[in-house]
Amino acid sequence: MKENAPPKAVLLLSGGVDSSTAMAVAKSEGFEIYALSFDYSQRHCIELEAAKKVAASLGAKKHLIIKFDLREIGGSALTSEIKVPKGGAALHEIPITYVPARNTIFLSFGLAWAEVLRAENIFIGANVTDYSGYPDCRPEYIEAFERMAALATKESVEGRMRFKIIAPLINMSKADIIRKGLSLGLDYSLTWSCYDPMPGGRPCGRCDSCLFRAKGFREAGIKDPLA
Amino acid sequence: MKENAPPKAVLLLSGGVDSSTAMAVAKSEGFEIYALSFDYSQRHCIELEAAKKVAASLGAKKHLIIKFDLREIGGSALTSEIKVPKGGAALHEIPITYVPARNTIFLSFGLAWAEVLRAENIFIGANVTDYSGYPDCRPEYIEAFERMAALATKESVEGRMRFKIIAPLINMSKADIIRKGLSLGLDYSLTWSCYDPMPGGRPCGRCDSCLFRAKGFREAGIKDPLA
Repeated sequence: MKENAPPKAVLLLSGGVDSSTAMAVAKSEGFEIYALSFDYSQRHCIELEAAKKVAASLGAKKHLIIKFDLREIGGSALTSEIKVPKGGAALHEIPITYVPARNTIFLSFGLAWAEVLRAENIFIGANVTDYSGYPDCRPEYIEAFERMAALATKESVEGRMRFKIIAPLINMSKADIIRKGLSLGLDYSLTWSCYDPMPGGRPCGRCDSCLFRAKGFREAGIKDPLA
Repeated sequence: MKENAPPKAVLLLSGGVDSSTAMAVAKSEGFEIYALSFDYSQRHCIELEAAKKVAASLGAKKHLIIKFDLREIGGSALTSEIKVPKGGAALHEIPITYVPARNTIFLSFGLAWAEVLRAENIFIGANVTDYSGYPDCRPEYIEAFERMAALATKESVEGRMRFKIIAPLINMSKADIIRKGLSLGLDYSLTWSCYDPMPGGRPCGRCDSCLFRAKGFREAGIKDPLA
């Protein structure tokens, strides 16, 4: 490796507020970023277009989109015919937009790519505050994945790499995430949050993801450029 | 659930000797089997045809094949232009046929499907004796994945399911695996092992996978129906 070559990071990028902010954070910390997105037959592909824009805007070294069809597995409003709920989730309940084992699948591909790239750092925008009750966004889950990764790969088992799963936003509120991204120059008009856009491609404003986004901008005292 | 309904199991099925034998074991233990295979742009698809035959022969309740392209990630002789080595692997070295994080990716999809099916049992034919030096075939890896899975899903976090990763062959020699399969009536002519078949679709006989298979049949004192 050349001296002073920037450290490499694989970053899971959905094109939403959290993963886009995580990318801005990784960039500000000097990482060379390999952005990884997934076309998993989610209900719409506006978020993949957002991911492409964010990856380009923040200077990803490479942006890879892996395609597979989670509709065959189903079990979520995001990958089946189950309707996306509107108007706010019940408290203390994991919502129907939860996609079974999604972050585990995403991080597994991230680990594979990280091993090939010899990138020790895997960034994920997971967030436990203001989150939607997803189990695979909690710190204890992230730590368990990291422990598993240490035993899973040739590079880790042979002692050359110690993969770190880095979730820089894990304990931040949505408002703090947005403030952080803005302080780093992130253009949130490039990002996308809505689970279930209107005909014509506008955010619905009423799904959980729209509601969390709106709450974040409101609490940060900033107008959402998409609103 | 109906009384006496058989317990459900997701089973990772490549169509090789190990996963096919694991399926015969799961069947003999009374599980209703949901077989899961992957079309990951491995070098040939003969093994997927073998998986279909084995799944049908052993009465899978369903056989799902998930498709994605690991060539985009690369890093293995099985998913890139790197040549499959012939004539026996160097001892104590993880060979170039290792596919980065493959079992982690496969088990992650298995976990997703298991959650949707409400199947607590996930079978994998991983094997540490006579194995090819793959880190993600070792018991400590399997245990770490299981600990991660306990924190990863809605069903496990809410306490309704305790996913078990079951590797019934983990400490068996290839010869013992073959004896076990034969005692359960498995037809090994349906299975496929070769990494790099000859033109015309015959096993090469010289890749690691062919060599381990041949050694297993030889030590079991049985003629390989594919030989």
